[in-house]
Amino acid sequence: MKNENLYNYILGIADNSLILGQRLGELCGHGPSLETDIACTNMSLDLLGQVRSYYQYATKIAGDGRTEDDIAMLRKEREYFNVLLVEQPNTDFGYTMARQFLFDVYHFLMLTELEKSTDLNLSAIAKKSIKEVSYHKRFSSDWIKRLGDGTEESHSRIQTAINDLWTYTDELFHQTEADKAMVAEGVGVDVTKLKDAYYEEVNAVLEEATLSVPESKYFQKGGKQGIHTEHMGYLLADLQYMQRTYPNMEW
Amino acid sequence: MKNENLYNYILGIADNSLILGQRLGELCGHGPSLETDIACTNMSLDLLGQVRSYYQYATKIAGDGRTEDDIAMLRKEREYFNVLLVEQPNTDFGYTMARQFLFDVYHFLMLTELEKSTDLNLSAIAKKSIKEVSYHKRFSSDWIKRLGDGTEESHSRIQTAINDLWTYTDELFHQTEADKAMVAEGVGVDVTKLKDAYYEEVNAVLEEATLSVPESKYFQKGGKQGIHTEHMGYLLADLQYMQRTYPNMEW
Repeated sequence: MKNENLYNYILGIADNSLILGQRLGELCGHGPSLETDIACTNMSLDLLGQVRSYYQYATKIAGDGRTEDDIAMLRKEREYFNVLLVEQPNTDFGYTMARQFLFDVYHFLMLTELEKSTDLNLSAIAKKSIKEVSYHKRFSSDWIKRLGDGTEESHSRIQTAINDLWTYTDELFHQTEADKAMVAEGVGVDVTKLKDAYYEEVNAVLEEATLSVPESKYFQKGGKQGIHTEHMGYLLADLQYMQRTYPNMEW
Repeated sequence: MKNENLYNYILGIADNSLILGQRLGELCGHGPSLETDIACTNMSLDLLGQVRSYYQYATKIAGDGRTEDDIAMLRKEREYFNVLLVEQPNTDFGYTMARQFLFDVYHFLMLTELEKSTDLNLSAIAKKSIKEVSYHKRFSSDWIKRLGDGTEESHSRIQTAINDLWTYTDELFHQTEADKAMVAEGVGVDVTKLKDAYYEEVNAVLEEATLSVPESKYFQKGGKQGIHTEHMGYLLADLQYMQRTYPNMEW
């Protein structure tokens, strides 16, 4: 492939939204209230909409007849480049909101920079997505505050979720080879530069939520290189089932 | 297919063991203690071993080149004929043991009759399987008693599991068209005749376990006709993932 770095760069961004969208979609019909159920499903649909734009662009770069469905549904586990954070299970509503919040803050910062990309396709996708992600971030931040500053039980559960998921935050700021190449061309976002702003914003929300900022400095990584946690295989089995069972199906 | 009733009859028996074996296998490495973990995994392997014998026989009857892996892994949800009981999720150890117990008592009674089948293949498989299932039944019955007559918490949880799964017991004694045809030929077991002995044995164990026999007379059915609960699709996604992702793979 001529533009392999660009192709991999796009997948690195899009896979995060695909896997997080899949996780949120699992909750459809299972949210703790009708309002949150619909909100989570809508966020899932926002993310999957963004994914389609990215993958459609990626198919043009590949230029070998592969479709957006091929990219979304027919890769093997080691060929997905999402961060470990987004593949973590829903567990409870606290985990779902903690995962969302920890990703949304990053996602918003990243898209704000991607909008300045010299690649006009990526810039346009970022510009469209940022409005949606701004809403996601408001929604998840509000829930962090509401749960943290809520009952003893909600405080304890959201703190547990934040503590457990904290170990996956550092990977958001790791660079792949494709990242480095695209940053050099002015196409990609230098995620290492987002780190300070990220933790500043996250910590401020946690503080307002009366939650402690985890002190652990031990961080997990691997997703960006296709090395995933045990949860990923089950997620892909669900995600890919229809496409693998009914090859080339279309809705 | 010339012997379609026999083929479907065999699948009706084998699918129960396949799906229950898959459920037990999910617990491998996750049991509440090393001893129970190994016991559940061994029961899973027993059941999958039985499944292979049944499916190997079924491939000969089909005689069209399909393999035991095709039968096990490549059918669609509506083409699996297991009872709804065995596809119910593990939920907790109480549910796992309640499901096992409610199936084992049936399984043992059924195999005892199947051993008398005029079909020598089925008779031989039954004869071999019954030793294993006798052990399964002892193991699950013991746990029903231990949990029922244990702590307040274990009593309450196993009672909840028995109550919830009770609704799936009646289907064990329903006859399909293939059942009726095979009973008429002296090949199949008339499951309707096992019902009284089943509830007598189950109720005796529940009583010894200081548990109540559920009074509900509302029963679920559908599995034997391929109409499954929502859990089945997720189970099949996991079960079929490797075979669908790597077609024709062999270990």
